[in-house]
Amino acid sequence: MCFEHVAKVVSARYQKEGPPSVSRRNFLKTGAALAAASATGVQLTRPRIARAQEMMGEVVDLSHVFLTASPTYLPDATPARETVVTVENDGFYIQSWNFGEHTGTHVDAPGHFIAGADTIDVYPASMLVSPAAVIDISTRAAEEADAAVTVDDIMAWEAENGELPVGALVCMYSGWDQRWPDIEAFRNADADGVMHFPGFSGEAAEFLVTEREIHGIAVDTLSLDIGSSTTFDTHVTILGAGKYGVEGVANLQAIMGMSAQVIVGVPRWEGGSGGPCRLLALI
Amino acid sequence: MCFEHVAKVVSARYQKEGPPSVSRRNFLKTGAALAAASATGVQLTRPRIARAQEMMGEVVDLSHVFLTASPTYLPDATPARETVVTVENDGFYIQSWNFGEHTGTHVDAPGHFIAGADTIDVYPASMLVSPAAVIDISTRAAEEADAAVTVDDIMAWEAENGELPVGALVCMYSGWDQRWPDIEAFRNADADGVMHFPGFSGEAAEFLVTEREIHGIAVDTLSLDIGSSTTFDTHVTILGAGKYGVEGVANLQAIMGMSAQVIVGVPRWEGGSGGPCRLLALI
Repeated sequence: MCFEHVAKVVSARYQKEGPPSVSRRNFLKTGAALAAASATGVQLTRPRIARAQEMMGEVVDLSHVFLTASPTYLPDATPARETVVTVENDGFYIQSWNFGEHTGTHVDAPGHFIAGADTIDVYPASMLVSPAAVIDISTRAAEEADAAVTVDDIMAWEAENGELPVGALVCMYSGWDQRWPDIEAFRNADADGVMHFPGFSGEAAEFLVTEREIHGIAVDTLSLDIGSSTTFDTHVTILGAGKYGVEGVANLQAIMGMSAQVIVGVPRWEGGSGGPCRLLALI
Repeated sequence: MCFEHVAKVVSARYQKEGPPSVSRRNFLKTGAALAAASATGVQLTRPRIARAQEMMGEVVDLSHVFLTASPTYLPDATPARETVVTVENDGFYIQSWNFGEHTGTHVDAPGHFIAGADTIDVYPASMLVSPAAVIDISTRAAEEADAAVTVDDIMAWEAENGELPVGALVCMYSGWDQRWPDIEAFRNADADGVMHFPGFSGEAAEFLVTEREIHGIAVDTLSLDIGSSTTFDTHVTILGAGKYGVEGVANLQAIMGMSAQVIVGVPRWEGGSGGPCRLLALI
């Protein structure tokens, strides 16, 4: 490609001004301004626009880096990236990517298992913002890789926290994210090639879509079903009910037991069976 | 690839039970449950988890579908997708993708123009959640394709709404999103190949990074600078200050003048100069 013009413009600018430095000054200034406003009760902006500012709490990242070395369900399905242009040679920097949709922290849309069901480009955006409910099975999973979230685990969570909130994203925390990105440890395949990692049981999935009003489920492993599943009950039940899954989630222990609103930032991949996403929690 | 096993399992299930149908029942049930709770004052869940539920307002999608026919800054840089497996043949459906990072509704990270600056995988997640400020230049842009957001436009917005909120995503609404995905109309190149579409002026960018505390800027066109720019002042100023840009934004008129919190759902593309994202607003 031909970027001589951009390279020339940017290089001329650098010779004149020196390269621009990335400043963290504004981060500090922001904090100081907020502290001052808080201390003095000064109103920084008029109420209508200011409300969105006041709503902002802490942001917790529940996403892994989308690595070319990402562990994948299929061992040969790792993504690839190429440098297309660079700041040094072309004035700006761009990569290109090549990958399958079920890579990294990613979404399973209903169309992933159900012919004719919603793909991610047409899936309702309102389903992508949800109160989180994190079910901790990490102690059991440390002993038994085939551990599954059961209906009893959901009941135990509800005894502690109240009924699952309407529109919840029900998340399994198994501790598996700490194995990322070690592909052998993450897939945990036995001598026969059968993988062993935690997931939701089919019965738990059935309970969630019939007895509760969820938006979807999320796991910190490679599949909504346990790794050794041969029947994919959880995929079929969740996606068949028009719900969605998020796989390869990170850092769920950071929001455990908290009131968190989770946003599934999945690009609207055309005809997408799902695809890479940014999962963020607001606490 | 070999998916005979999955195909066999899913096909056996379908023969037994028939294909699962995607049910909208739960959507209706959710609405009814919320209405009933609201009418009777019943508390559905305990306060700690319920708070995230109460925080949820309406979700507005500010993203275009990531089309293979997406208009791009470079005319030959359109993305490609392939079907890898299908529900009919393999039991489940997956596509693969091949594209440059600056396609569709997407982010420009500081590293896009500034060598050594943050790429999107290491960029602070806290910067991705912001109060929105939408500056409307659509009337001027309809007359003049080279229209730019100026410091006067920002002053006029502030006279109406108060000072820009700390940590704002400052968005240009030019009405250009209504040309999407007509690549000729969207690029709007003249006989010499020079594109003509709106953007932020370099002075406005300078004002925003020195006089206000913003997170970033967003445009409904192909570039933070106006299409005919040969100096890329806005890119260099915004990205050089460690802020980010979002290009190819849709539907900004839906949140104009409202208190909206905008989430930039950009996957953590490894070493990414930016990349495709989901832009959602909570109002």
